[in-house]
Amino acid sequence: MSSEANLIPAPRRVEPHGGVGPFLGEVRAIVDTTLGPEAYRLTVAADGVEIVGGDEAGVFWGRQTLRQLQGPDAFRQASIDPAPTELPYLTVEDAPRFAWRGFMLDVARHFLPKDDVLRFVDALAAHKLNVLHLHLTDDQGWRIEIKRHPKLTEVGAWRPRTKLGWGGEPLLWDERPHGGFYTQDDLREIVAYAAERHITVVPEIDLPGHSQAAVAAYPELGNRDVVDTAALGVKTDWGISPHVLSPLDSTIAFYEGVLEEVLDLFPSRFVHIGGDECLKDEWRKSPAAQARIAELGLADEDELQSWMIRHFDRWLAARGRRLIGWDEILQGGLAPGAAVMCWRWYRGGVAAAEAGHDVVMCPQQEVYFDHVQSDDPREPVPFGWVHTLEDVYRFEPVPPSLAGTPHETRVIGAQANLWTEVVESRARVDYQAFPRLAAFAEAVWSDLPGPGDRDFADFARRMDTAHYARLDALGIAYRPPGGPHPWQRRPGIPGRMHGSARKTWENA
Amino acid sequence: MSSEANLIPAPRRVEPHGGVGPFLGEVRAIVDTTLGPEAYRLTVAADGVEIVGGDEAGVFWGRQTLRQLQGPDAFRQASIDPAPTELPYLTVEDAPRFAWRGFMLDVARHFLPKDDVLRFVDALAAHKLNVLHLHLTDDQGWRIEIKRHPKLTEVGAWRPRTKLGWGGEPLLWDERPHGGFYTQDDLREIVAYAAERHITVVPEIDLPGHSQAAVAAYPELGNRDVVDTAALGVKTDWGISPHVLSPLDSTIAFYEGVLEEVLDLFPSRFVHIGGDECLKDEWRKSPAAQARIAELGLADEDELQSWMIRHFDRWLAARGRRLIGWDEILQGGLAPGAAVMCWRWYRGGVAAAEAGHDVVMCPQQEVYFDHVQSDDPREPVPFGWVHTLEDVYRFEPVPPSLAGTPHETRVIGAQANLWTEVVESRARVDYQAFPRLAAFAEAVWSDLPGPGDRDFADFARRMDTAHYARLDALGIAYRPPGGPHPWQRRPGIPGRMHGSARKTWENA
Repeated sequence: MSSEANLIPAPRRVEPHGGVGPFLGEVRAIVDTTLGPEAYRLTVAADGVEIVGGDEAGVFWGRQTLRQLQGPDAFRQASIDPAPTELPYLTVEDAPRFAWRGFMLDVARHFLPKDDVLRFVDALAAHKLNVLHLHLTDDQGWRIEIKRHPKLTEVGAWRPRTKLGWGGEPLLWDERPHGGFYTQDDLREIVAYAAERHITVVPEIDLPGHSQAAVAAYPELGNRDVVDTAALGVKTDWGISPHVLSPLDSTIAFYEGVLEEVLDLFPSRFVHIGGDECLKDEWRKSPAAQARIAELGLADEDELQSWMIRHFDRWLAARGRRLIGWDEILQGGLAPGAAVMCWRWYRGGVAAAEAGHDVVMCPQQEVYFDHVQSDDPREPVPFGWVHTLEDVYRFEPVPPSLAGTPHETRVIGAQANLWTEVVESRARVDYQAFPRLAAFAEAVWSDLPGPGDRDFADFARRMDTAHYARLDALGIAYRPPGGPHPWQRRPGIPGRMHGSARKTWENA
Repeated sequence: MSSEANLIPAPRRVEPHGGVGPFLGEVRAIVDTTLGPEAYRLTVAADGVEIVGGDEAGVFWGRQTLRQLQGPDAFRQASIDPAPTELPYLTVEDAPRFAWRGFMLDVARHFLPKDDVLRFVDALAAHKLNVLHLHLTDDQGWRIEIKRHPKLTEVGAWRPRTKLGWGGEPLLWDERPHGGFYTQDDLREIVAYAAERHITVVPEIDLPGHSQAAVAAYPELGNRDVVDTAALGVKTDWGISPHVLSPLDSTIAFYEGVLEEVLDLFPSRFVHIGGDECLKDEWRKSPAAQARIAELGLADEDELQSWMIRHFDRWLAARGRRLIGWDEILQGGLAPGAAVMCWRWYRGGVAAAEAGHDVVMCPQQEVYFDHVQSDDPREPVPFGWVHTLEDVYRFEPVPPSLAGTPHETRVIGAQANLWTEVVESRARVDYQAFPRLAAFAEAVWSDLPGPGDRDFADFARRMDTAHYARLDALGIAYRPPGGPHPWQRRPGIPGRMHGSARKTWENA
């Protein structure tokens, strides 16, 4: 590709024609469906700028490429450069590798206000990412207004204090209350704003685990026969709560009510119902849960969870939607049409693909952006595995065991996930997400060779030459190449590093 | 005025014509200089919408009125309401009472990232406020990139930890480093973005006090003959630092260099040089400062400060700018053309006006927005005096001793100031600023009667009926009328309340 352009993500083909001309802001935009979904052809010539898109999304991605050609000033909210932009004459032909190019933001552990979500949508659009997965509910907070159940936010949207870091002795706390939620109008605005940028917002309502905030708001949702759920508050520290939803009809009806409002707000075909890390201790002790297992003729608590997931799978399918959940939902069998978000390395994703389910790959060993970016001791909060910029650049969504098989196309895309237990503010979100999201964007959009053959040096050169300046213009508080700014450090905040064994396909 | 409109700030005159019609987004905009600066006439009729402005600013303020007529959806970043807007047929004739309708944001004590400043500019524009005063430097941080003195930000833009609240025992600290600064390009963007909204950005570089961050970065700026300035860091707690600038030529030359870059970035006619709260202990002990006093034939340290201020007054005037500073700069005499920002009740402002200086009124007893909004014990961080929404609504910039005198026109406007020692985040800025800034906007724009005769009930009705919904749409985390949300509280964070004696013109 043209080295002057320094485009990220790299397009399929760039043909320079030589010469440059001023850009006066006019673009001929044409849709030609023969190009295919999201594909585009951008031509800059003496007679002007033309973008032909396979659809409106393709035209939009073409505009993002044009914006990169214009220079960093095009990423500011007001121009600071009065000189007319000079564009190189060229043709760019481009199309994405994957249809699902996602980013998950955990707004449950730390709330991110509406404006900051909109700002993040802008950042996703600039990187040609097209799915924003909002993790809206968890043990530590409920962030979506539900009209028929107002206590979900009155009680569930805040906590009196928050654990700082993960573990550590003595425990550190931020004693300031934390909270907030999106009104339904806020969510409509986020959805509309994203749609204008050809980004789909996928809502996640986690069940039956990760639900302590909901149980704190409505104690009848919990396993009241084994725990005094009325005494529970929203969880203030990290880790998985044992206080999960009861498997009773009343609980299921409650969540159907929640999901009815969710469907009204989010036109997304996929609706995420979580399904991960549901501890079964309460169900094992609960006479009501055990009676339910017997009544349904199930073998055990794992089958009970599976039964609940399949209930919502059918419920969503009956309403024209598709369920997606974390790879634990595979246990116990999954209805056709349901899709899996594979986070525990690649194994679950491979199994799901082979069973005919669509898969979004987001292995925590590769693309969990709450994990540290280097082994520099100044890195804020040691957590997870080290995922450097280069590691993320070499992320490959399709493992060798699927590549070239008929199941390969079941991998509909990939996603980077940012959990926010140790990521307490927008500045920390920026730091953890960038610049790695730029590398991720290239890994899921561009037609790159296998991980080992990728030209990271060229990517790094494009970052240094052009892309960091774009991020500066966007106002993103990214991790500088040399390590964190002093004010980005978190000395003394404890974390939890995982082991070092990974990065071989064998242990996938 | 038309009760359907519920405009804030209230316009001079509204004439309803009866009937409504759909708004299709088209506006005939005309400039007619006979209307006067910033004035406008907005007409909604069956044949369309017309805005005649006395200048481009007038047209812009007319558009803000139109936006309020459109309803809250017009304040969202993407429309959530597909129905076409219905506008009432009417004529609005309007003009501001004051030319300077300002808001000061202290980004030195707690840094507010560029995006959040731009967002605040939007909020100011929606309220027809036209000056954003950025307090860029202080003991606790230096926030503006100065190319020739990079350590001002390398060293001065961050601190290792921050005092939580004011005073208290035991002292509470946020042990996380805090910092950040605006690059020169960021500031150009803020200035350009504000200019598009007819808002002037006034920079403040505080001297000779409130300068510990600068001295920490360049120890030679301090009084090295009496204190080991090389051992100073950026101040991490609150209160006035005794470590002030030296009065030497080298320090003055340094700040001239700083101001050269400031002038290059900010086209504002007024440049704020602080001048407040300069403790003189170091100068009293310093042989170098005493030699300076003798050499210049000055009486004492107060005259030395005055000499420094007048130096920069002349320096700015020679470059076509005007100095503005806090009312302490009156001590020792001020050059003609310099203006005063009066914060210590009204006395200094009255004296300055009578001496022929322009005055911006921002008395801390009335419009310091870091002060609490009610005496509710749940109010976050008890600080200052109680300024309720009604108190601010009844704020009168022209005291009786000036009203009706030839000096009255010297009061060019007023400003609300938000210091951020106990306001640590954007959410806290929102809470302290709103809804009070809406009341302030009406007090400085609208043609209201005297404080005692103002119809606060009508203002409160317009807030409840329409304006809170606009703030919701803007995504502003304002103080709800009934008191703070649980997550807006700050239990246990100490503050410092002032006495209750105030609110009489006699003690002004």
